[in-house]
Amino acid sequence: MNVVDSKKALVLFSGGLDSTTTLVYALSKNFNVLALTINYKQRHCYEIEASKKIVDKHPNVDQIIFDIDLTKIGGSALTDANIDVPSSSPVGIPITYVPARNTIFLSIAASYAEKFSIRDIFIGVNAIDYSGYPDCRPEYINSYESMINLGTKAGSEGLPFKIHTPLINLSKSEIIKMGSELNVDYGDTVSCYSLNNLGEACGICDSCHFRKQGFIDAGISDPTNYKKK
Amino acid sequence: MNVVDSKKALVLFSGGLDSTTTLVYALSKNFNVLALTINYKQRHCYEIEASKKIVDKHPNVDQIIFDIDLTKIGGSALTDANIDVPSSSPVGIPITYVPARNTIFLSIAASYAEKFSIRDIFIGVNAIDYSGYPDCRPEYINSYESMINLGTKAGSEGLPFKIHTPLINLSKSEIIKMGSELNVDYGDTVSCYSLNNLGEACGICDSCHFRKQGFIDAGISDPTNYKKK
Repeated sequence: MNVVDSKKALVLFSGGLDSTTTLVYALSKNFNVLALTINYKQRHCYEIEASKKIVDKHPNVDQIIFDIDLTKIGGSALTDANIDVPSSSPVGIPITYVPARNTIFLSIAASYAEKFSIRDIFIGVNAIDYSGYPDCRPEYINSYESMINLGTKAGSEGLPFKIHTPLINLSKSEIIKMGSELNVDYGDTVSCYSLNNLGEACGICDSCHFRKQGFIDAGISDPTNYKKK
Repeated sequence: MNVVDSKKALVLFSGGLDSTTTLVYALSKNFNVLALTINYKQRHCYEIEASKKIVDKHPNVDQIIFDIDLTKIGGSALTDANIDVPSSSPVGIPITYVPARNTIFLSIAASYAEKFSIRDIFIGVNAIDYSGYPDCRPEYINSYESMINLGTKAGSEGLPFKIHTPLINLSKSEIIKMGSELNVDYGDTVSCYSLNNLGEACGICDSCHFRKQGFIDAGISDPTNYKKK
């Protein structure tokens, strides 16, 4: 009955820099990977296409794309077309914060993981070079892990989930160095919150800011396709 | 900035016996109610129609219907057409358990609540006359509340969510008595996991079993439209 697939991990995979590094990290730990990509009708839906391209390059990775329309909820510059993506962050949690987003994503992940008898769930959250989103912090992840093991058959029957966050304490440059050692091609990954129709990164949003600085700090050449000024 | 709407509550509202009692309970506590109905493509989608009818009967209730296709995940008799709804429960968590369902629902609820500055969230879970679902137990709800307050702007800025579970320690007959005193018309509510095309309840699934016995124990006439034998 309760056979767990300990060779398989579920990775929340957006096609961005952090989740691609996380996916390749999980592969390096000898997991086969189920990459779960959530199409939440975000502004930067180029990510979905990027994610497919990255999956195609890696053996031992299957991908599921799950649709949930968070623009119906809105409340964020990423999910409400009436709210502009800011070019820099004020103090506090910025307007790009999507209410309860990682909780929704991890819950869909847990549901799939339980269905497929997977217990290892990876998420590329990071609490160093980040925008201050509350759902990226270690105390949140620890609390989520306790909660999901109380709220699922898996956990309550003694075969609990483990939420892996290999990037959580790394700086952006450390993430880029780790991924580069694992042969991640960062030219395939998309981070920008407001890509243009040509797929060019704006270079000024929060997400571009951390990415740019990360490559500079890592001393690694930045393959990102930035918009020409 | 951080103005909370303390007169409004969000109620997870399926149109079933428990959530209808919860909705009317919240109204009796002088909340205006945002009823969040999740259309997860469940077998018993009659519930959605029932929920609209009930909302129409109550002033001070707005309804949002949010779509998420959990049949894509499956893994339950309620979300996979290839798994039959059993007529009685074996020992343990039954096959009608939907992986991580309440966690997904509460997370969508928290996202909407945060968007609308609501902090009071009601869910009609019950851990007495129930099917043993892990995500209906008090320890799960307590853990969820801690987690969501760590994982949202609302919680991390000191204006936390409260998850209300007014039915959690009531027997089914006590729920029915409470609702009847609040003038709930249980003839409008739908509980059966396998309604037929005429909208008749099977009378034998777990959900019908608890409902039937609840009316008997409460000594209240059962208005449910059961299938003729």
